[in-house]
Amino acid sequence: MFKIKQKSKKTQARLGQLKTWHGEIKTPFFMPIATKAAVKNISTDELEKLGTQIILANTYHLYLQPGKQIIKKHGGIHEFLNWSKPILSDSGGYQVFSLAKIRKIKPDGVEFQSHLDGSKHLLTPVKSIKIQQSLGVDIMMALDVCPAGNADFAAVRQANEITYDWLKKCKQQWLKGNKKQLLFGIMQGSTFKNLRDESLGKISSLDLPGYAIGGLAVGEPRDKMYEILQYITPKMPINKPRYLMGLGRPEEIVFAVKQGVDMFDCVIPTREARHGRLYQFCAQSEKDSIELFDNLFYKTLIVKNNQYKENFEPINQASNLELLNTHSKAYLHHLFKTQEGLGLRLATLNNLEFYLELMREIRQAIKANNL
Amino acid sequence: MFKIKQKSKKTQARLGQLKTWHGEIKTPFFMPIATKAAVKNISTDELEKLGTQIILANTYHLYLQPGKQIIKKHGGIHEFLNWSKPILSDSGGYQVFSLAKIRKIKPDGVEFQSHLDGSKHLLTPVKSIKIQQSLGVDIMMALDVCPAGNADFAAVRQANEITYDWLKKCKQQWLKGNKKQLLFGIMQGSTFKNLRDESLGKISSLDLPGYAIGGLAVGEPRDKMYEILQYITPKMPINKPRYLMGLGRPEEIVFAVKQGVDMFDCVIPTREARHGRLYQFCAQSEKDSIELFDNLFYKTLIVKNNQYKENFEPINQASNLELLNTHSKAYLHHLFKTQEGLGLRLATLNNLEFYLELMREIRQAIKANNL
Repeated sequence: MFKIKQKSKKTQARLGQLKTWHGEIKTPFFMPIATKAAVKNISTDELEKLGTQIILANTYHLYLQPGKQIIKKHGGIHEFLNWSKPILSDSGGYQVFSLAKIRKIKPDGVEFQSHLDGSKHLLTPVKSIKIQQSLGVDIMMALDVCPAGNADFAAVRQANEITYDWLKKCKQQWLKGNKKQLLFGIMQGSTFKNLRDESLGKISSLDLPGYAIGGLAVGEPRDKMYEILQYITPKMPINKPRYLMGLGRPEEIVFAVKQGVDMFDCVIPTREARHGRLYQFCAQSEKDSIELFDNLFYKTLIVKNNQYKENFEPINQASNLELLNTHSKAYLHHLFKTQEGLGLRLATLNNLEFYLELMREIRQAIKANNL
Repeated sequence: MFKIKQKSKKTQARLGQLKTWHGEIKTPFFMPIATKAAVKNISTDELEKLGTQIILANTYHLYLQPGKQIIKKHGGIHEFLNWSKPILSDSGGYQVFSLAKIRKIKPDGVEFQSHLDGSKHLLTPVKSIKIQQSLGVDIMMALDVCPAGNADFAAVRQANEITYDWLKKCKQQWLKGNKKQLLFGIMQGSTFKNLRDESLGKISSLDLPGYAIGGLAVGEPRDKMYEILQYITPKMPINKPRYLMGLGRPEEIVFAVKQGVDMFDCVIPTREARHGRLYQFCAQSEKDSIELFDNLFYKTLIVKNNQYKENFEPINQASNLELLNTHSKAYLHHLFKTQEGLGLRLATLNNLEFYLELMREIRQAIKANNL
């Protein structure tokens, strides 16, 4: 199911291939986020053009709207949003914690009120997996408890215990369903190294198809996050895909790849596009350039800023997309100023192309032993 | 510049070809509206795919934002929005009347305050043409005075006089510029037949490349509008293109074509798309079908309505666009319910494809003597 094709001689980075129900994926990879069964402002044929291998959908949102019955009747989520390649869904747990009006963790599951209409729901581990089975995704995530970045030792330890208990229930439900769907367990432990060890020990004992690092980038300092990543990633099962949830900036992804992470998702490229921030590779000499690795640099630019009003250069001369190598920055500036939907689309395409290209550069660099 | 290739034996309808700076256009035709230099929610490559021959841009909006200097420096509006085919711009007059905070008609021009920042401006006939010359459009519209649908005889007569006076000034400015840009005069006269005659007599005496029917669909009853169209259109110069401004529903376009109109623009397909109303051809037997001509029927459907929640059929099986013949109505319903930008794009593509296909059907029917 998961094959490591090459290991870096310099770092823990690995090049691999993950086989899923809807196709094989080259690792390390990045998943654009289709929160409500659509990557905001772009279409699935554009995702194809960008070379997207897999996308991520949010169970919490789709459970509330349109509901799992509609998607199941439609023939599954691939049919629903018209995407034939792999899809990963989260468990819904994270959104319950971040979006729901009221939530209460019980031994059975998490009780919450919908942020849409206030309706009450109980999300249990079994229910989360059943929803994901109805969606028909390729990779399902277990329901976990994600403590806040500043939670104390006792709270984190308790979250670990519930997470492990729920993971066992998730596994039971997974085994009753279509085995082509893969189940991933999620490690917690916040910034406590011994609690990371404890959580990893428990979840990896269940021998699942893959494992995720949860509970990072939830408010802790970046140094602390780097320290934990460096500490725990190499200890994860070597022959299973490793997924760092919700991260991150390009340099954070590069750092994590060096620790041996294989999978990423993040709202940054799509969300920041909506605020007019563009990610682009650049020369080292450019102002505010940030180094990624091996002489690869990037910068961000806020195309809404006045300095782009008369910048008639293409949005991205190096882009493979005609929409980006023909339209000018001045035009994109104008689209943002006049709040035209096309502006969001162009900025989103720019940022996703950057993130997906970054992953290709990373895979190339691992292959060439440059990372 | 304008050639009539065939005249209908049944009606006043004509099939023709209009030669412009940026290419030839088959008449009768419809212009999608790119108010602020973008057809809302779609891209110029999609306009190409739809077979769009020409688009319309709004002088008022572009004058205020980004301003004519930016567009001129950029190399003109075609470069700015990345569209190599013809573009028509209105004079800005209509938006001054409908959008500006305060406006005052003076003999020299119209004084107004920007709806964006309250800044004061004076739009004169010469200034309107100068702006359109800076934009570099293919067809420029003269600045006119458009009285409200319920204006009295005296007010309409006065509007006619100012409109004629301004048209002469527009012509002088036009003759100083690039003759490849065509200038069209606008007839007014509201629903008074003798004032329509008067206005037409005056403007056609100036021997311009084309003429428009203004001041219809501004609040008068549809019957009255039809009566005026039927009365005045055949009296317009036979060998000049005739443009009915701002209209209309599909059956109104068919009616106007039968009176001899060659050119149309309307916000309906793009605006109603944003409200989730889809235009589609259908069989006569379908509920609420509306006849166009010669056994051609259409209907509209509100895809936001609950009845489409579980409609798994393609948005439009007959569409030439993969986005429309693969995505389902249920998915589009979901996109509207969750306010995803992709929904606006799909609905806009659907409606523009319908309007452009309607014009192809009309041209075909004239050729076959069926209209």
